[in-house]
Amino acid sequence: MNTIRLAVDVDSGDYGPRVVLSGIVEARAALDVPFKVYMCGNRERIEAAADEVGGGERLGDVQVVECNDIIDPGDRRASVWKKQTGAAIVRCITLQKEGAVDASISAGDTAILMGAALFILGRSEGALRPVLAALLPTVKKKPVLLLDVGANLNCRSEHLVSFGILGERYLGRTRKIPSPVVTLLNIGKEAVKGTREIAEAGVQLRERCSGYGGFIEGNDVLTGDADVVVCDGFSGNVLLKACESFHRLAGSVLGDTASHNDDYKRKMMILDPDNYGAVPFLGIDGTVLKAHGGSSSRAIANAIAAAITAVKSRAVREPM
Amino acid sequence: MNTIRLAVDVDSGDYGPRVVLSGIVEARAALDVPFKVYMCGNRERIEAAADEVGGGERLGDVQVVECNDIIDPGDRRASVWKKQTGAAIVRCITLQKEGAVDASISAGDTAILMGAALFILGRSEGALRPVLAALLPTVKKKPVLLLDVGANLNCRSEHLVSFGILGERYLGRTRKIPSPVVTLLNIGKEAVKGTREIAEAGVQLRERCSGYGGFIEGNDVLTGDADVVVCDGFSGNVLLKACESFHRLAGSVLGDTASHNDDYKRKMMILDPDNYGAVPFLGIDGTVLKAHGGSSSRAIANAIAAAITAVKSRAVREPM
Repeated sequence: MNTIRLAVDVDSGDYGPRVVLSGIVEARAALDVPFKVYMCGNRERIEAAADEVGGGERLGDVQVVECNDIIDPGDRRASVWKKQTGAAIVRCITLQKEGAVDASISAGDTAILMGAALFILGRSEGALRPVLAALLPTVKKKPVLLLDVGANLNCRSEHLVSFGILGERYLGRTRKIPSPVVTLLNIGKEAVKGTREIAEAGVQLRERCSGYGGFIEGNDVLTGDADVVVCDGFSGNVLLKACESFHRLAGSVLGDTASHNDDYKRKMMILDPDNYGAVPFLGIDGTVLKAHGGSSSRAIANAIAAAITAVKSRAVREPM
Repeated sequence: MNTIRLAVDVDSGDYGPRVVLSGIVEARAALDVPFKVYMCGNRERIEAAADEVGGGERLGDVQVVECNDIIDPGDRRASVWKKQTGAAIVRCITLQKEGAVDASISAGDTAILMGAALFILGRSEGALRPVLAALLPTVKKKPVLLLDVGANLNCRSEHLVSFGILGERYLGRTRKIPSPVVTLLNIGKEAVKGTREIAEAGVQLRERCSGYGGFIEGNDVLTGDADVVVCDGFSGNVLLKACESFHRLAGSVLGDTASHNDDYKRKMMILDPDNYGAVPFLGIDGTVLKAHGGSSSRAIANAIAAAITAVKSRAVREPM
């Protein structure tokens, strides 16, 4: 098998280079496939972190890509890719554009990463906007795909339609579900409910998605009846994080009775950012994964595993 | 104590008059306060339902208010109050305007109920728009107040600010929290995150709410650090219902280990529409409660209890 080449943004994330490099070490120990990591960031800090995590041997096949541009919090985030070309989060994407790597991982700002991915790599065929997708557990054995979970805050109807189609094709490729049930998140099931954008998107999705299942309310998202739930990035982010919050609440009250229940633990694994690692952008012509800002080393290790799987299966990158 | 007079919309709700009348019977048995119910709806169907639930004696002090206007699904919902003045959901509110009742309860359409309440009863002093408020459980002993949960889908910054102030004053009155921590739901904590409306609302709330606590993400809503979470009605509806959905998911996996845990059961009670009964509109010059479309008889009984408590404490109606 060819060595899979990954660009990892070592500068972003809340906990600094040491945690990201620990993640690489953990991935190296856990994964039985050859992969090379291009560590993008400040050389001095990367070298100090490398020493802290036990040095080059434990990191394996890695290379430092020096990146020294600093992003100012006042910069317009969607255009950072044009101005700070030497920022680690942008450099990952240009490496990918140059063909030096197969995929990128960053725990940096979503809007900056999306801007870079969209304008440097371009959209995949037929996609209107990139979208972040996440999986949620359901009452049934299969999870539900939720998109968008934070890339697009204001969506017109055609964007929602495009998300539905991206989700349908993604599940077709990754889970071999030929005609997944695609639903639109709304505050009621009746046609008069919700915004005009949602109503219009519903009309179009009914024509364009063979498995379109109509509107879905928040209280039915986790029943397992839907395979895909489409919404704007604000609602999706709230929904995803509310589930994480509720999971923690249940755990805090139930304690051992929850944590010792294997079924429960298994089902909830996909809700824990440490386990899912990172979520993919769909609609980009390339594999770009967004890790949580607060990623632990285990989250980074799992993000690397997810990126490798995506590259191998061409799950994210294949055109619509 | 004076008899509290309630208008109950018997025509709305998914399960028809029999369930609503059963709710009145259950409330009568459970509550030790004198109250009279004006049952608004189709006389024939109410009388048939009254027979089914055991007749007049079990219903106690009730009166039928005949309402025969039918709302067409194609009607513009916010102006139904003007055209279908003889629809049960509207008649409840006009009874209240006339001073015949102290509060109204309906399981009908939120937009229709809000239109009627807003235009017939008017806003309470200082409120810009009515808002639906709900309580969520938290890791701490106290719940968090979430608003809006479905009355206003598109909100400008001044609406969000107004919701924050309504929430602050409501908790001041009902829970004697003098300076509650008021937060704004967003997809990140940094000032650059989210929409312009949210950013502007944050600036204003910092000036106008003494306990303003900044942005909050979905994953921190249930930690108990915030007393009030402000958001638009779409996100709030999704958040509230996602918690209900997750609660059912956890219950389905954990089974007895959850249902036999008293702490868990107690904490989750406020999430179950059967228990909370109905949620109040804040910002209306009067006590109007919106019950879930799928209300059971127990939900209606608890909605009656909630309405009586609100009237007695003047919790909802008192001006800002």
